[in-house]
Amino acid sequence: MAQRLIVIGGDAAGMSAASQARRRRDRGDLEIVVFERGNFTSYSACGIPYWISGLVPGPEALIARTPETFRTDYAMDVRMRHEVTAIDLERREVVARDLKGGEVRERFDDLMYATGAVPVKPSWAITDAGGVFGMQTLDDGAALRDWLDADPQPRRAVVVGGGYIGVEIAEALIQRGLSVTLVEAGEQPMSTVDSDMGELVAEAMRGLGITIRGSLPVTGLEERDGRVSAVVTAEGPIPTDVVVMGLGVRPNAALAEAAGLPLGPTGAIRVDRRMRVPGHPGVWAAGDCVETLHRVSGLPVHVPLGTHANKQGRVAGINIGGGYATFTGVIGTAVTKVCDLEVGRTGLRERDATAAGFEFVSVIAESTNRAGYYPGARPMTVKLIAERPSGRLLGAQIVGWSEAAKRIDSLAVALWNGMTVDDMTQLDLGYAPPYAPVWDPVLIAARKAVDALAALDR
Amino acid sequence: MAQRLIVIGGDAAGMSAASQARRRRDRGDLEIVVFERGNFTSYSACGIPYWISGLVPGPEALIARTPETFRTDYAMDVRMRHEVTAIDLERREVVARDLKGGEVRERFDDLMYATGAVPVKPSWAITDAGGVFGMQTLDDGAALRDWLDADPQPRRAVVVGGGYIGVEIAEALIQRGLSVTLVEAGEQPMSTVDSDMGELVAEAMRGLGITIRGSLPVTGLEERDGRVSAVVTAEGPIPTDVVVMGLGVRPNAALAEAAGLPLGPTGAIRVDRRMRVPGHPGVWAAGDCVETLHRVSGLPVHVPLGTHANKQGRVAGINIGGGYATFTGVIGTAVTKVCDLEVGRTGLRERDATAAGFEFVSVIAESTNRAGYYPGARPMTVKLIAERPSGRLLGAQIVGWSEAAKRIDSLAVALWNGMTVDDMTQLDLGYAPPYAPVWDPVLIAARKAVDALAALDR
Repeated sequence: MAQRLIVIGGDAAGMSAASQARRRRDRGDLEIVVFERGNFTSYSACGIPYWISGLVPGPEALIARTPETFRTDYAMDVRMRHEVTAIDLERREVVARDLKGGEVRERFDDLMYATGAVPVKPSWAITDAGGVFGMQTLDDGAALRDWLDADPQPRRAVVVGGGYIGVEIAEALIQRGLSVTLVEAGEQPMSTVDSDMGELVAEAMRGLGITIRGSLPVTGLEERDGRVSAVVTAEGPIPTDVVVMGLGVRPNAALAEAAGLPLGPTGAIRVDRRMRVPGHPGVWAAGDCVETLHRVSGLPVHVPLGTHANKQGRVAGINIGGGYATFTGVIGTAVTKVCDLEVGRTGLRERDATAAGFEFVSVIAESTNRAGYYPGARPMTVKLIAERPSGRLLGAQIVGWSEAAKRIDSLAVALWNGMTVDDMTQLDLGYAPPYAPVWDPVLIAARKAVDALAALDR
Repeated sequence: MAQRLIVIGGDAAGMSAASQARRRRDRGDLEIVVFERGNFTSYSACGIPYWISGLVPGPEALIARTPETFRTDYAMDVRMRHEVTAIDLERREVVARDLKGGEVRERFDDLMYATGAVPVKPSWAITDAGGVFGMQTLDDGAALRDWLDADPQPRRAVVVGGGYIGVEIAEALIQRGLSVTLVEAGEQPMSTVDSDMGELVAEAMRGLGITIRGSLPVTGLEERDGRVSAVVTAEGPIPTDVVVMGLGVRPNAALAEAAGLPLGPTGAIRVDRRMRVPGHPGVWAAGDCVETLHRVSGLPVHVPLGTHANKQGRVAGINIGGGYATFTGVIGTAVTKVCDLEVGRTGLRERDATAAGFEFVSVIAESTNRAGYYPGARPMTVKLIAERPSGRLLGAQIVGWSEAAKRIDSLAVALWNGMTVDDMTQLDLGYAPPYAPVWDPVLIAARKAVDALAALDR
């Protein structure tokens, strides 16, 4: 008799796992059942802001593979709009509710838990009023687009929260011609970089016409005729026709917790590097619902990001399929853009480095993306954080106007390999006038960090 | 009495060394005399093709620092249009000819040899006919620009040699509206990448309207009325109004050799990693006239490139100034563009890996620079060469249509650190739809290389 894999959640992690398991074990050997509570499988949530702005057609363009593809080409039993409501680890069964009605109970040998994350939603945001949107699923995106297109057409928008999604949605809405206010409880948006670098991002956002209200928590909503009319803050209401929530996400681990699977300090599911849930043979988890190792701080972290979900799912699937693979942690690399401004980061911010107990120096180097004389040369700012006294790179951030964000990759690889800033001054990086000054910005920053360390040694 | 440093050659390496030495030792302690046979100091030779095309104003924009700046701000005795004709290591003197007339003899304590490289010029290219140009100095650039602007205005151009300079000049000339033929003795231009990747470059050049004649050595020139009228090949003459030589450069080491300084197997000057000439205390060399260690092959190589010259000069200058610095070798990273096509390379090509005695696999992965659905997504091809059986990365090449070239840096850092392709599949690289598909092209290529190695193990 074939063994059976049940996958809970049909997005990046779950479907990567299922596909890899199928590559290694055919249908006679492994039956695969997927429960997905939504309407889509394997789509790019990261692309939603660009669909809202109109840059990308959607939602079809954002879908990598449809349920039908998985059924036909991968011989999977994909059950859409089925929400798993319980996991019985003793009996090795899951209970799933068909959202059209009814309930099923299914046996598993292996269980792949890939429920992703859910948006943080404070109590004040729970409302029946129209015009308040999360921004996590294709359904969220469709609902916001409909609202923006309907009569009366919204003219003012408030985005609550200045993380990646908040910043990207603010950009999308201003591109659609709305008047946009971003309200952030912290000092400034883009707290994933240090405040000195974040200020460059905030400046650029203001340059686009986005109003930024920092250090201002939202405490409620006002509504009129069943529609949102303002967000409430300590500095008074901010009138608006639409509110988009960008307060981040938390691991969707309630079902796992109820079943007795172990959660870590981040509130996400604990897994080992083969994506097994410790203490529960045959139970796997991956994606935005798990925590992982930060290779620099050594601490567990919850980093919901499609690229990790895909990698982790693939690792789980290879292992389920009888192979051997590991996911060995993250270093917190991320890139984004605000119109033409590009932002990249990797490793620890200053506050992370302090929290992790490191002594460090940090330096900021101003340079350009191309030779100064080459047309299109634009400012580029590189920040490095280096451990004292070793000089080991702990983190890096880049803000620049073009061809800047992906340069973080070379710093990410340096960090991954534990390079010191001294080593980094020797790096043989690509040089030609259209691509870099003769001293690459990364080299300039590394030299500056070496000088900063030396100054402290005196 | 102050000691005296004599610098032979006032470009990147020489002036970097002189500046660093001055930062550490003031004029009372170290007298600095610079002999430069040309009209300029510290300029970007790499920028010349973009001046020819008109993209960059010149030549002023290409000059980083003038002789006057070095005299005034750095207290250096800079003697322009002085050609050093002999070095007497016993008496510690150089003999320099003032090109305006006369000769001087100057004593040194330290000697910085930074004479750069000279273009390869076959005997057939030695001619009095007008319209034949090298492309190495600002004077070369000025002469070509004058010729292109003068009556009768050239309409047809032949570029001899398809290395970086040849390809860049061919692009510049076609942008100026000339009909351009590139003649290459090897199979195809851009032999700095493997032929499968080079073919992508050749295709792009043909797409621009450049005629490529491969496997066709030039053997002579034809002239009429004192002007070049054709290049001669085994397949007949190719009529032209202007010929630009791009046959590469060789180290300008004749003077060093005559003085008894050691040359290595590449014909360039041998130096240690502090840029000292072995066996000759107080004699230093840096830049396009020296050879250096290739960190992957372990072999000495001659890689004339501004970024190395600057780094090496800086290292020499720090050491002359009493500090400690090293230049620990190169891995052959280089980037260039042919209009919108971007090319990056690092490490060994297949032929280099074979020559160095490695067993290896090579894989090519086709991907895109951005998420497939994101506007402006363009093809990007990544080639990896990995050692058997270790999986250690030996070399990488990228060809793509935008935001491609500088991605070689992350591969260069991976190579620098001796990563295996297995390790590389784990890398935490920046992901967002405007910058990469959810599986970064580098990760896709690394996975493919792992698969190729595994297939051979079976």
